[in-house]
Amino acid sequence: MPQPLRFQVLAHDPSSSARVGRVETPHGAFATPAFVPVATRAAVRALAASDLRTLDAEVVLCNTYHLFLRPGAETIAALGGLHGFMGWAAPIITDSGGYQVFSLGAGQEADELKGRRRGPAQPSLVRITEEGVEFRSPLDGARHFFTPEQAIAVQHQLGADILLAFDECTAYHHDYAYTRASVQRTHRWAERCLAYHRASPHAERQALFGIVQGGVHRDLREQSAAFIGGLPFDGLAIGGSLGRTKQEWFQVVEWVIPQLPAERPRHLLGVGDVDDLVEGIARGVDWFDCALPTRLARHGTLLGPWPAERWRLHLTRGEFARDASPVDPTCDCLTCREHTRAYLHYLLRSGEATGWRLATIHNLAFLLRLMRAARECIVAGRFAAWRAAVLGVG
Amino acid sequence: MPQPLRFQVLAHDPSSSARVGRVETPHGAFATPAFVPVATRAAVRALAASDLRTLDAEVVLCNTYHLFLRPGAETIAALGGLHGFMGWAAPIITDSGGYQVFSLGAGQEADELKGRRRGPAQPSLVRITEEGVEFRSPLDGARHFFTPEQAIAVQHQLGADILLAFDECTAYHHDYAYTRASVQRTHRWAERCLAYHRASPHAERQALFGIVQGGVHRDLREQSAAFIGGLPFDGLAIGGSLGRTKQEWFQVVEWVIPQLPAERPRHLLGVGDVDDLVEGIARGVDWFDCALPTRLARHGTLLGPWPAERWRLHLTRGEFARDASPVDPTCDCLTCREHTRAYLHYLLRSGEATGWRLATIHNLAFLLRLMRAARECIVAGRFAAWRAAVLGVG
Repeated sequence: MPQPLRFQVLAHDPSSSARVGRVETPHGAFATPAFVPVATRAAVRALAASDLRTLDAEVVLCNTYHLFLRPGAETIAALGGLHGFMGWAAPIITDSGGYQVFSLGAGQEADELKGRRRGPAQPSLVRITEEGVEFRSPLDGARHFFTPEQAIAVQHQLGADILLAFDECTAYHHDYAYTRASVQRTHRWAERCLAYHRASPHAERQALFGIVQGGVHRDLREQSAAFIGGLPFDGLAIGGSLGRTKQEWFQVVEWVIPQLPAERPRHLLGVGDVDDLVEGIARGVDWFDCALPTRLARHGTLLGPWPAERWRLHLTRGEFARDASPVDPTCDCLTCREHTRAYLHYLLRSGEATGWRLATIHNLAFLLRLMRAARECIVAGRFAAWRAAVLGVG
Repeated sequence: MPQPLRFQVLAHDPSSSARVGRVETPHGAFATPAFVPVATRAAVRALAASDLRTLDAEVVLCNTYHLFLRPGAETIAALGGLHGFMGWAAPIITDSGGYQVFSLGAGQEADELKGRRRGPAQPSLVRITEEGVEFRSPLDGARHFFTPEQAIAVQHQLGADILLAFDECTAYHHDYAYTRASVQRTHRWAERCLAYHRASPHAERQALFGIVQGGVHRDLREQSAAFIGGLPFDGLAIGGSLGRTKQEWFQVVEWVIPQLPAERPRHLLGVGDVDDLVEGIARGVDWFDCALPTRLARHGTLLGPWPAERWRLHLTRGEFARDASPVDPTCDCLTCREHTRAYLHYLLRSGEATGWRLATIHNLAFLLRLMRAARECIVAGRFAAWRAAVLGVG
């Protein structure tokens, strides 16, 4: 059977577990460590595929849940899959929908989907059984049932290069007993996802990653890493609650990664703060996806080389109303080359989509450049010094 | 005194009053006939200056009223005027704010400014005297008083290349007596605008256009055209109610244009349907500004060479959900080169800013190309045939 994904490790950092790699997919290659922009509804909000190319983004992640509800996986399949649908010829990852299905329970995702800032408290819309998960569409109230097999079938239709197994994404507030039962069910679902996928001709062109769960519990994380890492997935992802503090999640990643087979790529799900990326790379993560940097942009928070300010510039603050300097004078993105902080301040305060666009371009440019620098420094043997400089501890 | 604007007529169409010209300003030249995209808040919504350059837009119009209220003319002046503020080095036109000040009376503009779809009926917020107009900011309720002199002073601060005199924009429902009194006051205001402008050093680098009013009344329009055309304005604009039907406004333009001095440029305000542009050009209009094509784009109406459908494709209709063709197969814009009707349908139905952006790019590309074709056909002596073909009457 042809391999849908090839992963080569090209360099190791001697001071940490950081490594440089290259992933080849049927839609081209990407370099790791990588930050993967999130194109929730087949678009990074306010950007088109051409913008992502200009930014030298090499891979994007789309949300299965949103696309399943609207326009539907069959529609996307009929239009040539996500690559054809969004006009993006490079690699695409889809998540399993699990995270969104479960976060619906708290009603937050429903608010996000409907564009509401804050909705009334909602009853849980999610019911979990061994077979799968029943949930309601926040768009029209329609009832849906996702089994692991259906989550993969939907992703087959969406046509991404890298798919994620269907898992239960446990939250921090779940106790040990619940998390233990949940992780075991996630393991059974992982086997079902894999069996369904490998029986399908899609397995020749689409890679499937397993997801390690286990909350903040060392034994559960290690067991999950060993179990998921022992299955013939094309790569591994780390999901679920990573804890409430940075130290907790660093710890979770340190428990998990040594249990994973070194020759397969590792995707840390939903993490995207600057220190998260740098510390994740140091611990052996190959790529990250996160909607935070693009969401921050739309809310007026711009990222840059400012560790003392948690890499954030809150551009909607009054002090920037007449600031004629670029967001980041060291940045070569379109936004920093052509526009001032004052202009972005005004556009973002006015709710202008041009402001979302320019801020998003900058935040992605910054993170993508950060990842290029990480790769170069690992190859050149300068990762430790670079890490300290980025984190402001050098 | 240096001339802030040079206008040369380069070619005439023998079959009509259409003409090709070239306008030179301190920020470069633009070719006429031209469609001028509206960048209300110093941005064409969802586009940046770089997008306008890619589209080969040569000139944009910004709304004084919106920019006066936020961020304020002083802020923009401190940031290098509109050219510096929006990162656009090419020609800019500002309107006088008159249209928005008066349309506030109906409360519609307030809804638009606050992003409301439909507000409660509002009491008139506008009070007109000989001295000027008092109005309230819909943003914070603050009271403002605009005199003709202040309208020009604000535009001096904004720093556009072409300014418009402060006028009262009468509506269709105003009767003859009201319109007559109003147009006479607008004439007195025009003289005050001109006197104030010519006494200022700004007159060396900024051109001032007068506005012809008079509603749908032939004698008032002819008197206004003769009066405004007889003042030493750098160019002339036609404003106010042009009637309820296309035939009425064609008639208004036919009354006005022969009264205007042929060597000065003519701007028809707020008109931008495809037939409006073609028929306006045929009647001797040199340029047009209109927010309609970009607003239509955001609401899912795409423009193209379809006279039988009033040049409109209502892309949010269900029939386009799986349409894999480009918006217009004959269009070479980014949107048509890279994306399908189905993708735009989905993005626009989902309220994604990427959809606004791609639709806006297409609508502007279509109109800017239409204007280029008009110019070429006038020069080549083929305007009559082209006009008939565009209008679908050939």
